[in-house]
Amino acid sequence: MIRTHTAGSLREEHAGQKVTLAGWVARRRDHGGVVFIDLRDASGSAQVVFREEDHAHDLRAEYCVKVVGEVRLRPEGNENPELPTGKIEVVADTVEVLSESAPLPFPIEGNVGVSEEARLKYRYLDVRRQQVAHAMRVRSKATYLANEVMNELGFVYVETPTLTRSTPEGARDFLVPVRLQPGNWYALPQSPQLFKQLLQVAGLERYYQLAKCYRDEDLRADRQPEFTQIDVEMSFVDQEDVIQVGETLIARLWRELAGYELPTPLPRMTYAEAMARYGSDKPDLRFGQELVEMTDYFAGTTFRVFQADYVGAVVMPGGASQTRKELDGWQEWARSRGAKGLAYVLVQEDGTLGGPVAKNLSEEELSGLAVKVGAAPGDAIFFAAGARTASRDLLGAARLEIGRRCGLIDESQWSFLWVVDAPMFEEDGEGGWTAVHHPFTGPKPEWADNFQDHPGEALAYAYDMVCNGMEIGGGSIRIHRAEMQQRVFDVLGISKEEAESKFGFLLEAFKYGPPPHGGIAYGWDRICMLLAGGDSIRDVIAFPKTASGFDPLTGAPTPITAGQRKEAGVDAQPRQD
Amino acid sequence: MIRTHTAGSLREEHAGQKVTLAGWVARRRDHGGVVFIDLRDASGSAQVVFREEDHAHDLRAEYCVKVVGEVRLRPEGNENPELPTGKIEVVADTVEVLSESAPLPFPIEGNVGVSEEARLKYRYLDVRRQQVAHAMRVRSKATYLANEVMNELGFVYVETPTLTRSTPEGARDFLVPVRLQPGNWYALPQSPQLFKQLLQVAGLERYYQLAKCYRDEDLRADRQPEFTQIDVEMSFVDQEDVIQVGETLIARLWRELAGYELPTPLPRMTYAEAMARYGSDKPDLRFGQELVEMTDYFAGTTFRVFQADYVGAVVMPGGASQTRKELDGWQEWARSRGAKGLAYVLVQEDGTLGGPVAKNLSEEELSGLAVKVGAAPGDAIFFAAGARTASRDLLGAARLEIGRRCGLIDESQWSFLWVVDAPMFEEDGEGGWTAVHHPFTGPKPEWADNFQDHPGEALAYAYDMVCNGMEIGGGSIRIHRAEMQQRVFDVLGISKEEAESKFGFLLEAFKYGPPPHGGIAYGWDRICMLLAGGDSIRDVIAFPKTASGFDPLTGAPTPITAGQRKEAGVDAQPRQD
Repeated sequence: MIRTHTAGSLREEHAGQKVTLAGWVARRRDHGGVVFIDLRDASGSAQVVFREEDHAHDLRAEYCVKVVGEVRLRPEGNENPELPTGKIEVVADTVEVLSESAPLPFPIEGNVGVSEEARLKYRYLDVRRQQVAHAMRVRSKATYLANEVMNELGFVYVETPTLTRSTPEGARDFLVPVRLQPGNWYALPQSPQLFKQLLQVAGLERYYQLAKCYRDEDLRADRQPEFTQIDVEMSFVDQEDVIQVGETLIARLWRELAGYELPTPLPRMTYAEAMARYGSDKPDLRFGQELVEMTDYFAGTTFRVFQADYVGAVVMPGGASQTRKELDGWQEWARSRGAKGLAYVLVQEDGTLGGPVAKNLSEEELSGLAVKVGAAPGDAIFFAAGARTASRDLLGAARLEIGRRCGLIDESQWSFLWVVDAPMFEEDGEGGWTAVHHPFTGPKPEWADNFQDHPGEALAYAYDMVCNGMEIGGGSIRIHRAEMQQRVFDVLGISKEEAESKFGFLLEAFKYGPPPHGGIAYGWDRICMLLAGGDSIRDVIAFPKTASGFDPLTGAPTPITAGQRKEAGVDAQPRQD
Repeated sequence: MIRTHTAGSLREEHAGQKVTLAGWVARRRDHGGVVFIDLRDASGSAQVVFREEDHAHDLRAEYCVKVVGEVRLRPEGNENPELPTGKIEVVADTVEVLSESAPLPFPIEGNVGVSEEARLKYRYLDVRRQQVAHAMRVRSKATYLANEVMNELGFVYVETPTLTRSTPEGARDFLVPVRLQPGNWYALPQSPQLFKQLLQVAGLERYYQLAKCYRDEDLRADRQPEFTQIDVEMSFVDQEDVIQVGETLIARLWRELAGYELPTPLPRMTYAEAMARYGSDKPDLRFGQELVEMTDYFAGTTFRVFQADYVGAVVMPGGASQTRKELDGWQEWARSRGAKGLAYVLVQEDGTLGGPVAKNLSEEELSGLAVKVGAAPGDAIFFAAGARTASRDLLGAARLEIGRRCGLIDESQWSFLWVVDAPMFEEDGEGGWTAVHHPFTGPKPEWADNFQDHPGEALAYAYDMVCNGMEIGGGSIRIHRAEMQQRVFDVLGISKEEAESKFGFLLEAFKYGPPPHGGIAYGWDRICMLLAGGDSIRDVIAFPKTASGFDPLTGAPTPITAGQRKEAGVDAQPRQD
């Protein structure tokens, strides 16, 4: 090593020792011939004193330097109790510039706001900033802990292929031309789903992987074209076993990295209840403002808008004092989500009800309304009426927006739960059905024989782990019997040909004594983001891409040349054998 | 869990207990009304006894079953001391078929030879075979240990991008069209080299990753289009530090998984010595048969073939008794490697020298020859003469072939060493120079100032770890100064434009105080293969591809449809901004 000590490790007991440090010039202060420099390395920083300006003459911000000097206690009154190294300083004998730095595009030290574009373009400077480096280290520790937990639980780490089969039905696959087989293409996997199920057929029984997954899709909603899952699959299990492994893993992560003791077993909520009370399959339980169903309440109403399959409400505390512009803003907000608007009633301080909807309601409807929805004087009541699912979605989103605007969410709190018993199928809008999870998801045991007769009601043997309103993991007990799988394909309208093309090799494997199995995948970027206290998964990705999949640092993606096209076989016709 | 116990964990102390097992029907023996079945699961197997044939009537090989029964000691004389569960058996009360198995393409139990194609097509059955599953588990354990060691040594695990920048010069890159930016392409990385160096500029100081790498090239020599590296990079280090980390990692793996104590510090050999003595930069030291340089010995020869820049020899013990056909075979072998042939002299049992070359040599040359090369009566002496590098290559290959044919290699032995001081550059055959490692490899300190003046002699600050004649790791101390990097580019004839296109973002990063740094990458597939005792890296890859990049299991790669082409933007023109 070029150095004898790391800067951040120096303490009082090093006083009198000769040390060699190496790191970066973080801060510089000149005091009449004496120059103080904070020398930063990965461990922290230490104050270095140059007694004559000569030595420090050329040292500018972010120069990489090697300093030889003696540790001494700082003169009384000069200690910095906020720094672990605040009681000492290093008196420099010699300094060597290991490399210089050009003027910086943004300062490394201090809390200066920097555009995300600049941060990503100069990511190697951004990561020198303490909080960014911290996020990288949290992710690394989380990764280590995950490996430790899974190892302790007897899981086998298996790397599954990332150059795999493309299928015509596989929308959003990234495709890769193959030079050695011109005209043929691999696909990058959206998940190792098929392979992890094959590993169960293979008898490994407990598989996990830190798996890179790929999706060539619109990157709104804080997504990346490549992302990481902790991918888990187990044989001879039911839902309880997979949930227990998940709680062990997540509890360990939060205990060691967030200092939080998970209240295991975590609460569970059915999908139906989550939708009814929170208008979401990933409810944020850190605040109340639950949805109130008003369908019966308005069963006899003469107000046309509320003559609907579903009427629901959510209360905004203090919302009655919003300005006209703010109330109009809610209409705009609702329209941007595809709704017609957001009906509201304002509960005045004197208890009377105002707003445009109120005058359409009967005396009786008005008189019980505030009590029914739990609104107090000064609150606003928002309504949605119409199709049940769409209305609940809107109210669920309004609830979250209310939580944010009114500061109802305690950001220091953790809210974990499992959402279980999701429907197997949902209507595809064209008279058919699609799988809510994926077509290998098994039915709950009580639906094993007749899910095909009631596709709209059948429940899946599936479970999602939710934290603070985000889905951080999702999985299911899989189908392992060909006969049941066929019934699912029938409901989904997947033809024999399509099934064969997409996952024929899995169906083939299932002919050879497949074990009952199930699993789960955790969104690793999101988990690390929560642990690191970030706002975006980009905070915990070393070199993230922008929303359009662009990397401001490397300039990827780029056009390719005709030579590259030819070499890679992009335009080759596949050989007809 | 569907079961209460794993089959392989049952012992005498379980006798009398009611257990539920779940696993596969491995072997079946019928003995007059009583049926014995070996039930296999991931933990091992246990014998299950069905007292009436009825229950076991339908159980065929590889059915997946659940058995409830009572553990009892086997009747005296029926114990199987070779099995951990050999003292007990489970008397079945009930059996449930969890899934049936079609007739198998090959037997799971027993050492039946199966073609590799069948093994890969039915990999999920192949992995049920004990030794194959064992290899998967060894790899998993090795991965865990690697994480443990690197964590203990303070390394930060960072996932670097796998969708990155393609460059026109980057031959053998896999390319990926980007739907969101039609006409633009990512490349899959051949290694995280540039990113790991950026992470040093970023100040993380100690980076590692289990990194997936990609190379679209001919897959001879046991390669795969995707492969895994343990990728390491460190700041403020010199060669000793990187070597020490490597020895710590490899020693731990071999200690815990191969029961072998690495003799650290490992021996080191210079590249020059390795080439001179073994004709290889990755010498297998498990046997002798070193190359003997004969250039001086034949300095005055009249034999035209030996009037060469270099003459060398290698001895084949007992080789004089080879048949004419075998000796001709060596010529064929040499020609298949691009040589003209392999001259030889046979040392007869009476000490006289035979073979076609002998009659071209003088009495004096003949008389001292056997002693000079260390040949005994009965041996053959092979010669190569001509250009030094090519001749040594040939002799080095002949040496390995001799080792194999003569059974000189003790397969139970481990031979580790570092090969250091490789040349920085080698001639590219067109009057220029190419980098032996890569263009960021630094010169040894003594060559720092003048490597550009003696490119044929300058030594790189590089080190390869070699095990049993295979390179299992390679790295170097990198260049971190722009001025030195420019001199390397000049030697390599890399223009400013090419440098900018290929790694402009790294050169830009190096303007901002890059630390001195270096690293290494370990070939993880190969290391796991050695630890698992396999012959091919395919033995330790769950779903490997064949030499042409084909996956017999999934059928990847496949042609794509016109719709997929359009969707993925394969034929789009990049937008001109």
